[in-house]
Amino acid sequence: MRSRADATPSRVLLEALGEPGDTLELSGDEAHYVTRVCRVREDEIVSATDGAGGTATLRMLSVRGAVTARVESVERAVARRRACVLCGAPEGQRADWLVEKLAELGVGRLVLVDCERARWDAAAARLDRLERLAVAGLRQSRRCWRMRVEGPVGLDEAVRALPGEGERWLADESGGPPGRAGAEGLSTGAIGPAEGFSDAESTSLRSSGFRGIALSDARLRCETAAVAWAAWWSAGGVA
Amino acid sequence: MRSRADATPSRVLLEALGEPGDTLELSGDEAHYVTRVCRVREDEIVSATDGAGGTATLRMLSVRGAVTARVESVERAVARRRACVLCGAPEGQRADWLVEKLAELGVGRLVLVDCERARWDAAAARLDRLERLAVAGLRQSRRCWRMRVEGPVGLDEAVRALPGEGERWLADESGGPPGRAGAEGLSTGAIGPAEGFSDAESTSLRSSGFRGIALSDARLRCETAAVAWAAWWSAGGVA
Repeated sequence: MRSRADATPSRVLLEALGEPGDTLELSGDEAHYVTRVCRVREDEIVSATDGAGGTATLRMLSVRGAVTARVESVERAVARRRACVLCGAPEGQRADWLVEKLAELGVGRLVLVDCERARWDAAAARLDRLERLAVAGLRQSRRCWRMRVEGPVGLDEAVRALPGEGERWLADESGGPPGRAGAEGLSTGAIGPAEGFSDAESTSLRSSGFRGIALSDARLRCETAAVAWAAWWSAGGVA
Repeated sequence: MRSRADATPSRVLLEALGEPGDTLELSGDEAHYVTRVCRVREDEIVSATDGAGGTATLRMLSVRGAVTARVESVERAVARRRACVLCGAPEGQRADWLVEKLAELGVGRLVLVDCERARWDAAAARLDRLERLAVAGLRQSRRCWRMRVEGPVGLDEAVRALPGEGERWLADESGGPPGRAGAEGLSTGAIGPAEGFSDAESTSLRSSGFRGIALSDARLRCETAAVAWAAWWSAGGVA
């Protein structure tokens, strides 16, 4: 068990980090996380992020009743590289760990896409639940960028809404071998649902600039392909 | 739903594939899988593997009562590359999908290792359960090599029992960036438990030839690191 902040430093997500010297009050999930999960004590240090590139060092002032902390320092990072995943529906409850793993691997945006052969069901696509899992992944990996989960939307609509920049990849067993992922800017990966993209969808994606990439020498489940793509992208960010 | 063999060809695991012309009887899990999950009918074609590089094409003779099939052809593959993962204990029930994903990605051998900071608990390490999940991954990815799950054993013992050949990698946030995984032979990855390897364990692994490899620019959970390592290795096998 990790019971102490000095063993496994905690990281909390706050809407606003304030400025050095400010006193912040943690509420709800974050107060619970700090006091019950990490068991942080008064006067201990906690790391915080706003999920938008900002990180802060907080010193806990009180952990009983109101949970308050003083901001000791604040830093802001610039995103050198970003990843977006368009993902069809996996089978059953596999969306949960898909979200957690993509967040851990540093994906910034996940768009749930409805496809010809499969639509997201309402339970699997509950955004509040998925956002909570994304926050758990952010805490775990101590990142400062929060993964946003959107959708479900139709595939065409999702592609039209993408920014024009960056690399576009289509996970495809018959695609080319992966090189090293882009060291800068936006990379977008499109992953078909459990049943795969239809031929028309694949053709449309290719005509929108998505290049086929084979992530393994065998077929992968939807969620495995999404995580393998994210792992490939994430490895490209190691200096 | 994939209800027909021609929509998503099934793959069954058989101890022995026999020779062309032989009649085989499928029993237990495999008979259930073919008749109930894949809903294969008489005279339809099913793909089989022995999990040891052999694949066979079977034509179903009967699917009610005794489930029997005739062997139409048999092929044997030679393993050009293989992966072995030594993995510490993840938190909670995360071993289940760890096993499924490693099997899908083509890892051949998973050794559960007990470490200084964490031991596998008996429930998570139930080998019969984990072997079933590995078979599910094999079916899904239509591979012909079955992942074997072993242990738990101590880390030192696991390392001593490794074959002398091949590349050895230690998943380590402070390691070097991953290049392309070996195109031939054995690659072994060592993944610490949720609490990480101790300094003594890391030192021991390095002195046994394990080189540090950073799979992401942030820390990953045990099971995420194992799957990211397997995805990295698997991508190296794409021609």
